[in-house]
Amino acid sequence: MNASIPSDISSSGSKPLQADPQAAAETVLYGVTGWPLAQSLSPLLHNTGFRTLGLPALYLRWEIPPQRLPAFVDSVRTLRIGGCSVTIPHKVALLPLLDEVSPLARQVGAVNTIYWHDDKLCGENTDVAGFMAPLAQEDLHGADVLLLGAGGAARAAAAGLMSLAKDRRPGNVFICTPSDSSHLPLAEEFGLSPILWAQRHDIPARLVVNTTPLGMRGKAEDETPYFFDLADKKNGKDAAETTTLAYDIVYNPLETLFLRDAARHGRRCLSGMDMFFGQGDAQFRLWTGRNLPLESRLALEAALNSN
Amino acid sequence: MNASIPSDISSSGSKPLQADPQAAAETVLYGVTGWPLAQSLSPLLHNTGFRTLGLPALYLRWEIPPQRLPAFVDSVRTLRIGGCSVTIPHKVALLPLLDEVSPLARQVGAVNTIYWHDDKLCGENTDVAGFMAPLAQEDLHGADVLLLGAGGAARAAAAGLMSLAKDRRPGNVFICTPSDSSHLPLAEEFGLSPILWAQRHDIPARLVVNTTPLGMRGKAEDETPYFFDLADKKNGKDAAETTTLAYDIVYNPLETLFLRDAARHGRRCLSGMDMFFGQGDAQFRLWTGRNLPLESRLALEAALNSN
Repeated sequence: MNASIPSDISSSGSKPLQADPQAAAETVLYGVTGWPLAQSLSPLLHNTGFRTLGLPALYLRWEIPPQRLPAFVDSVRTLRIGGCSVTIPHKVALLPLLDEVSPLARQVGAVNTIYWHDDKLCGENTDVAGFMAPLAQEDLHGADVLLLGAGGAARAAAAGLMSLAKDRRPGNVFICTPSDSSHLPLAEEFGLSPILWAQRHDIPARLVVNTTPLGMRGKAEDETPYFFDLADKKNGKDAAETTTLAYDIVYNPLETLFLRDAARHGRRCLSGMDMFFGQGDAQFRLWTGRNLPLESRLALEAALNSN
Repeated sequence: MNASIPSDISSSGSKPLQADPQAAAETVLYGVTGWPLAQSLSPLLHNTGFRTLGLPALYLRWEIPPQRLPAFVDSVRTLRIGGCSVTIPHKVALLPLLDEVSPLARQVGAVNTIYWHDDKLCGENTDVAGFMAPLAQEDLHGADVLLLGAGGAARAAAAGLMSLAKDRRPGNVFICTPSDSSHLPLAEEFGLSPILWAQRHDIPARLVVNTTPLGMRGKAEDETPYFFDLADKKNGKDAAETTTLAYDIVYNPLETLFLRDAARHGRRCLSGMDMFFGQGDAQFRLWTGRNLPLESRLALEAALNSN
């Protein structure tokens, strides 16, 4: 049964969904999809944003096996889901299922964000913007950079660094992996300088980036891909001035072994939390046209600090 | 990006979704689907229920054109949507798309509720339970009933009345429509007694049910399918004692012309609101195992009274 009711009962404008059980039916859905879907802090980021700004929206979790990805995209269209964060293993398989994919996402070869533009379901990669956000104030022009690892985050880092304007672009971006081989395709594609894993401490880089999972809670928390004392020894006593920045894309724990070691040897540290917040902030803008509020950042910091 | 976080951040048990932005990601979705989807009071009923009982669930509106109904059902499966209310025109087309359909829904030939039982997507018809709910305390055994109209609600009424136990079943259930023809299939299928529209006031029925849209706000608000003074004249002065009950499935407005006229002529009145609440209550039980709380009924009454 479904009788007509006056529209004023159910139209409460942009009040938060909590305000009115009838208006809650107009809630716009967002969410994250992956398989398996690890506990993610994206819901905290986005739901705090929706609530703080009074937007009638809700961010969910959708664990979708790879063979159901086309059905999932069809569901996004059928239910007119407002947008979606995308994580492993769907970031690459998603590209042919969308109406439009941004040049940047094509270059990275991965989509981490689905959003609507008019009636087109579009794909973007905000990991690049997220990676670059903490570097916005840094002068990397002509400087050497060392990328450790060659996975999805390294692709985003390479795309971001190599797409900087000429007067801001680094000199050499060196890349290496423990396997001494998996980084070669990425190096060729983005014009990076491949080196052997054993050579990584020989590079007097102004920025060292860890994109490997080493140091991540529950996986390899007691490990680090880099030893700053070795770099100092090999590059002389002024190495700390040369290698000014250490950037870890791992953000749980906030203080990885890599960053603790870097700080002890005089480096400034950039946490993966900044990248995580940056990619979420860019998603939120694509979905709502607004920035994530301060409350989202504070909620993220509180969650990570309470670990 | 999607790092692991400790599970205690996101597991807040059965607290309402409003309590915790991270836990809100576990919200179970429900909703109503139809085409076009008139403003419905089902969201008010169910969202008030979820909130009052502290259930992490949300009831939405999904306007789905008929050709997209299979895709919609696939979306329900893919996103593991908790359940769905179904309205015109999907109630019949839905049957072959589900894993199981209850005997009752098969008998009515219509599904108004989708729910999960283990891993099976099931269909039920709670319009029958909704129609019968206000009659639970009434003694109809051997009494004559008059059904006006032959649409979906009349089917639910017929199925409900004819499925009563022998010691509670009415005598004759008469049925008629203004067309004098559209009620014939229903009469044959359920063993009702078809009469001409012009004869409707000749039946000294103990229960007269309006299932036509006559009297509905915005459609035929100034009309009524029945004139109780005519029935009184034709059946003698004790007709009011014979025809004790008038039941209008129209609930907006709460007081239809049919019910006002019935009250003026000494009949007890049953409002369509009771049926609407009853079918929603039965849906809520299928989804949550619990009854809709009093707050849902109060919210419904308030919404209808504020018209």
